[in-house]
Amino acid sequence: MDTFDRLKAAASADWSSYVDHAFVRQLGEGTLPEAAFRTYLVQDYLFLIQFARAWALAAYKSRSIADIRAAQAGLAAILDETDLHVRLCGRWGISPEELQATPEHQATVAYTRFVLDCGMAGDLLDLHVTLAPCVIGYAEIGAKLAPAGVAALGAHPYAEWIGEYAGEGYQGVAANARCLLDDLASRNMTERRFDELAALFGKAARLEADFWQMGLDAGA
Amino acid sequence: MDTFDRLKAAASADWSSYVDHAFVRQLGEGTLPEAAFRTYLVQDYLFLIQFARAWALAAYKSRSIADIRAAQAGLAAILDETDLHVRLCGRWGISPEELQATPEHQATVAYTRFVLDCGMAGDLLDLHVTLAPCVIGYAEIGAKLAPAGVAALGAHPYAEWIGEYAGEGYQGVAANARCLLDDLASRNMTERRFDELAALFGKAARLEADFWQMGLDAGA
Amino acid sequence: MDTFDRLKAAASADWSSYVDHAFVRQLGEGTLPEAAFRTYLVQDYLFLIQFARAWALAAYKSRSIADIRAAQAGLAAILDETDLHVRLCGRWGISPEELQATPEHQATVAYTRFVLDCGMAGDLLDLHVTLAPCVIGYAEIGAKLAPAGVAALGAHPYAEWIGEYAGEGYQGVAANARCLLDDLASRNMTERRFDELAALFGKAARLEADFWQMGLDAGA
Amino acid sequence: MDTFDRLKAAASADWSSYVDHAFVRQLGEGTLPEAAFRTYLVQDYLFLIQFARAWALAAYKSRSIADIRAAQAGLAAILDETDLHVRLCGRWGISPEELQATPEHQATVAYTRFVLDCGMAGDLLDLHVTLAPCVIGYAEIGAKLAPAGVAALGAHPYAEWIGEYAGEGYQGVAANARCLLDDLASRNMTERRFDELAALFGKAARLEADFWQMGLDAGA
Repeated sequence: MDTFDRLKAAASADWSSYVDHAFVRQLGEGTLPEAAFRTYLVQDYLFLIQFARAWALAAYKSRSIADIRAAQAGLAAILDETDLHVRLCGRWGISPEELQATPEHQATVAYTRFVLDCGMAGDLLDLHVTLAPCVIGYAEIGAKLAPAGVAALGAHPYAEWIGEYAGEGYQGVAANARCLLDDLASRNMTERRFDELAALFGKAARLEADFWQMGLDAGA
Repeated sequence: MDTFDRLKAAASADWSSYVDHAFVRQLGEGTLPEAAFRTYLVQDYLFLIQFARAWALAAYKSRSIADIRAAQAGLAAILDETDLHVRLCGRWGISPEELQATPEHQATVAYTRFVLDCGMAGDLLDLHVTLAPCVIGYAEIGAKLAPAGVAALGAHPYAEWIGEYAGEGYQGVAANARCLLDDLASRNMTERRFDELAALFGKAARLEADFWQMGLDAGA
Repeated sequence: MDTFDRLKAAASADWSSYVDHAFVRQLGEGTLPEAAFRTYLVQDYLFLIQFARAWALAAYKSRSIADIRAAQAGLAAILDETDLHVRLCGRWGISPEELQATPEHQATVAYTRFVLDCGMAGDLLDLHVTLAPCVIGYAEIGAKLAPAGVAALGAHPYAEWIGEYAGEGYQGVAANARCLLDDLASRNMTERRFDELAALFGKAARLEADFWQMGLDAGA
Repeated sequence: MDTFDRLKAAASADWSSYVDHAFVRQLGEGTLPEAAFRTYLVQDYLFLIQFARAWALAAYKSRSIADIRAAQAGLAAILDETDLHVRLCGRWGISPEELQATPEHQATVAYTRFVLDCGMAGDLLDLHVTLAPCVIGYAEIGAKLAPAGVAALGAHPYAEWIGEYAGEGYQGVAANARCLLDDLASRNMTERRFDELAALFGKAARLEADFWQMGLDAGA
């Protein structure tokens, strides 16, 4: 078991509440109301802006030039992802102006600022443990929703979204994030500290579940 | 108009959603379900722990010994308030162990971490502007719910809570906070910046309204 | 060996450069030029202002109310120490106005901002490891300079300063700081991390030695 | 007068102590001892690592995606500059291993951590005001040392270094930094705050002068 699997096992109920959420199920089945998806998409754009700040925080918190470079690459990747997001939103008829003008939902504020605060108050490991449900969890969800591969999604209404996270590119990002977590844990994680980290991880997973719920509520 | 009144005027809809929330009205009329109040009380304890951190942040962000001392007094006052809270909870049958064991609600995470993040990313004025809906708003609510004075509350079920915030002690705390806001604004607030601050203030007020809503939902 | 002794052993040359510095020897022998002592005293006042911020940072970085309270007590103690400092300076003819108007020396900036940055970028253990040369080191120096007790110092020109750090009060503060270091280490220090912490500790000790040197240079 | 010129005028003595330092003069005349230059070069590499962290901090402190992108570009530029530095050091016979193994000098710690701490405790304007003596000052020094242009430097022993900062590329970076300073000032600088910023700017310039002095001392 790597560090990520240990965290999931220690917070399994919270993890299920997130990856098996009704939003995810309906997304996979293609039955998710469009209003739910659109609300999610816009908030996820606002979410990414804060996540870019979280990667910048990782660079600030680094001691070696190698660690700064790794975080800088993460930051650049997130900024690219926001461009993709603007295009994806465009295809759903959401203009850049609408994206910018939408206020953050409570669920968006809660998870993003929780991560930023854990990362600032704690160390790099705290930061990456609370980022993991998002960074690594989306790859797990993507893979689950495209069991026969991205090509087999066909005319699925949410094929583009699922394909993004099920695709090789994002799966590689998540694999790297798992390695980074192991590296940080081998440097800084005592066994006594594991329980604290698992509690942070579980809390982050619940806040992600709340984020799905926000989308679902908007489609009701 | 002092800075606080200007902020309220610029974010009046958000401000009303907070100070005129159904939770506040029912609290004042004594019709608030006990379950709603208890849920609020426990989350407010968890809230105060984060607010103690916010005052510590204000001390860290200070340049002069006078500013450090003022923030230190604020931190000490919050720590005293948590003791009061433990006693108040005790009278409602909530043990310290229950307080510690309750997980933070999304609404608690959202407002507290928003304040901490604004304060860390911005300057002391950003921090105090986002703290203001809580610090100064509670005094406004307290005064509104005890129009004939604390003594006139009699056997009101929530007399102790209302009395705390309507009382002279807390009204003085809020008056000082207004002066501090004016002082910081005179030093650091350009007119161009006012709009940004009013947006942060309005967002903080909405997150406070969400916090009341959390209590109300628990009593439904 | 407790954590502090392990850190000293791992950075013994840096530690000696600090606690056995010529400034310390001359202070103990009473031969330190008054100009050196006065320059030190004024810079140490400016130093304390930043150290108050470091304790505030410790409170901000705390997760439990108990840890916040402990840091708040540390902050309050430093603020009291600055009052003592103002009085001590007064006896050497240095007015509060002169204290405030003196610019920070490079050596003062270097150690204080190093501690604040380590603490912000790292975790509570990083913060307390870099504070330790000052907090615990001064108790070691005080005890060394008053081998026969504070009372035996008699008409020693620096009796008041030595007595402050050799006295029971400060020795207790340092003993608590050692316990805190052990507690944090048992929670968060892997063996792999020890080397990094020892490097930070050694660097902090060298910056303290540079601080003595600044005083000595001023008396030359 | 733009903001940068106003800051220089308000801290003119500190500014001269930096840009007219003996190290700069001897560098321009080609009489600077090689030992002084080499010591400077190695410390400047260590300096850049901390400056990369300062640009990451600017990204973290940004509110809009545009500001994050600008800071990210600054961070990427600094990381590129460290590569150039490794090559330049190589030509002077300093290996990457030697670079990594050299401890930071007090002067390096003092200026870099001062900037990081000002930036964290204050806002983006504080951060950029304290970065300015380095970012913009090096362009001023470069232009001064190559009055007839980079090509005219010929066989000057420090032609490569001077050419780097006198060249079009770096002059453009500095011009952008001046615009950014004006933009931030127009948003966040009250006249009352100007004096505080000028004091921070002057202090940063003095710490830069101390950095030259460190090089000079090593060549004596």
